[in-house]
Amino acid sequence: MKKVAILGSTGSIGTQTLDVVRNNKDKFEVVAISANRSVDLLLKQILEFNPKYVAVYDEESANKLKEMIPKDVNINILIGMEGLVKISTLEEVDVVLTAVVGMVGLVPTIEAIKAKKTIALANKETLVTAGELVMSEARKNNVKILPVDSEHSAIFQCLNGENKEDVEKLILTASGGPFRGKSKEELKNVTKNEALKHPNWQMGRKISVDSSTLMNKGLEVIEAKWLFDVNMEDIDVVVHPQSIVHSMVQFKDSSVIVQMGCPDMRLPIQYALTYPERLDTDFERLNLSKVASLTFEEVDMETFPCLKLAFDALKLGGTYPAALNSANEVLVNEFLNDKIGFYDIPYYIEITLKNHKNIVNATLEEILKVDKETRKFLKDLIK
Amino acid sequence: MKKVAILGSTGSIGTQTLDVVRNNKDKFEVVAISANRSVDLLLKQILEFNPKYVAVYDEESANKLKEMIPKDVNINILIGMEGLVKISTLEEVDVVLTAVVGMVGLVPTIEAIKAKKTIALANKETLVTAGELVMSEARKNNVKILPVDSEHSAIFQCLNGENKEDVEKLILTASGGPFRGKSKEELKNVTKNEALKHPNWQMGRKISVDSSTLMNKGLEVIEAKWLFDVNMEDIDVVVHPQSIVHSMVQFKDSSVIVQMGCPDMRLPIQYALTYPERLDTDFERLNLSKVASLTFEEVDMETFPCLKLAFDALKLGGTYPAALNSANEVLVNEFLNDKIGFYDIPYYIEITLKNHKNIVNATLEEILKVDKETRKFLKDLIK
Repeated sequence: MKKVAILGSTGSIGTQTLDVVRNNKDKFEVVAISANRSVDLLLKQILEFNPKYVAVYDEESANKLKEMIPKDVNINILIGMEGLVKISTLEEVDVVLTAVVGMVGLVPTIEAIKAKKTIALANKETLVTAGELVMSEARKNNVKILPVDSEHSAIFQCLNGENKEDVEKLILTASGGPFRGKSKEELKNVTKNEALKHPNWQMGRKISVDSSTLMNKGLEVIEAKWLFDVNMEDIDVVVHPQSIVHSMVQFKDSSVIVQMGCPDMRLPIQYALTYPERLDTDFERLNLSKVASLTFEEVDMETFPCLKLAFDALKLGGTYPAALNSANEVLVNEFLNDKIGFYDIPYYIEITLKNHKNIVNATLEEILKVDKETRKFLKDLIK
Repeated sequence: MKKVAILGSTGSIGTQTLDVVRNNKDKFEVVAISANRSVDLLLKQILEFNPKYVAVYDEESANKLKEMIPKDVNINILIGMEGLVKISTLEEVDVVLTAVVGMVGLVPTIEAIKAKKTIALANKETLVTAGELVMSEARKNNVKILPVDSEHSAIFQCLNGENKEDVEKLILTASGGPFRGKSKEELKNVTKNEALKHPNWQMGRKISVDSSTLMNKGLEVIEAKWLFDVNMEDIDVVVHPQSIVHSMVQFKDSSVIVQMGCPDMRLPIQYALTYPERLDTDFERLNLSKVASLTFEEVDMETFPCLKLAFDALKLGGTYPAALNSANEVLVNEFLNDKIGFYDIPYYIEITLKNHKNIVNATLEEILKVDKETRKFLKDLIK
């Protein structure tokens, strides 16, 4: 019985994680769940999975939940960052699945690593903003960081049984998002509703917009760099609209190992929870003659400058990726609030990077400060 | 330094094996080579690689070679099956690469296994005719059988680091050969020259015809069954005209692991020689955005009945696959000699199977007898 804490149980990854648990009740026990504000769903999850702890990030929502919970349900309700850290470090927890959105995932993840919990990592920002710090903490504590992102899970699976020194290149696939093939001119005035229509995956709003700008792929490149300890030059991105090939590894003898499947996030979630085992599933099987054709295109960094900005930030190193990420979080939010246009996202990110004061080997406190300052910088700039 | 004996050094696989050795002279030493009649090429290979032994299957050719070899070259020239067995069991040899064509590879391979040599297996007939016997002998002697066929090498690579119990299905890709998409009517009168034009691979004549009838894929299915110890029902064939995806494994959690690359037989040859290591190569790298599209189709067993016959023989078990293989060898030869038509190959194979007297748990002698009798049966039938 693996004992699991889920940070962000009401989001897209969180609910699918609970679906994996639901299908394997003899394998997993949910000890703790958490959310920001979605207390209605949280209550339903509490009643179904009967966790011992729930952490609610937003205090007001926490109080609301307290009132909603039936008297006969025995649960500890925790609040804020303290609550997230508490459920990430519980003695009885084996695996912490981090599926919260944004920078808020960083501190609980680091604390979970220090408490020697296996990390099933769905929160991109953790490695994007603090990759060096987090990986060095993981090495120090001999903790496994298992990827939940479909691309990183694919690469992780392709590396099974292989020697790290034999890896020549990681090749991340990108669906190209809803705006693949469009010109810069055509994309000038796209709306958030168009950006939210991802062709292959059902995802949260933030990541859907990131997919439409290709920033999502940029964040994944940065994440892959840290997770698999490779040079930036050895990470390629190729556009693959069908999202069947989830990513690949090219080895030094020219062999390419690929992981494929029907797009279903429950597979990488489950693999992270069961690794190195695989569990039976009733997920749809890939039928290649039905799929008929897998296509591949070069990525267009001209039309989608966010990807290039991510590579730039990674090259610049230090806290540049953290600044890029915070800027992107602010700007995607502004875009979702109809405050800025589609191309304002890369426009303001570029300005942010130009004005960023880099810190090499930043501490956690410095990284959190970069986040704060970047947000302030942009708020002042845009208003 | 790995010491290698090559059975069939003048064929397509043999010469490519020597190319791999040529590129890695610090890694491999060729101790012995062999051929049937190609003494001119054999002499060139002797002068370049300086092996201690050469075996020539055809006696007359052996005598010719003796006369051709310069006086100052110190080499043992061996003759016939005895010669093949001798070089397969030399004390100093680590790996025996078996690349002879046809049943003649069987006895030397079994003797090599008994002598505890690692087998790099390119001779399909070995497992097709005597899979049960060979694999049990390999288990008994704790000997590794490493596949050289690109499809089996692909599956072997996809299984790296995975648990056998997690395998749900092996999926072999087939290019479809030169006659893919043609109707039975159109194929009635095809010539050997048309059959020999394989779209993606440069191969020997026998295997090229087998690719055009899809018997090659049938033999590979039988080989895969023994090599990977799976049920026939868990082996699928999918047509993939580009020959980029070399084959795949579907796991019980729905994940599919795939091995890809530009078609170059030197990769699987080298991998069999270096496993579990990978060596640097200058082979062409796969550029997926250049390839642009990988397509997949269901296999058409109606138009290509040889594949169905292979599945039938495998299902019938015992010596049926041996009879199928021997019949196919005879018939492909007759087709290459313009004695019979394209569809006479499956026609006569079907008659052969109908008349075959099965032997369960056949000994090597019985398998060799099946071969002889099948050849006689067909010679009598066709003449």
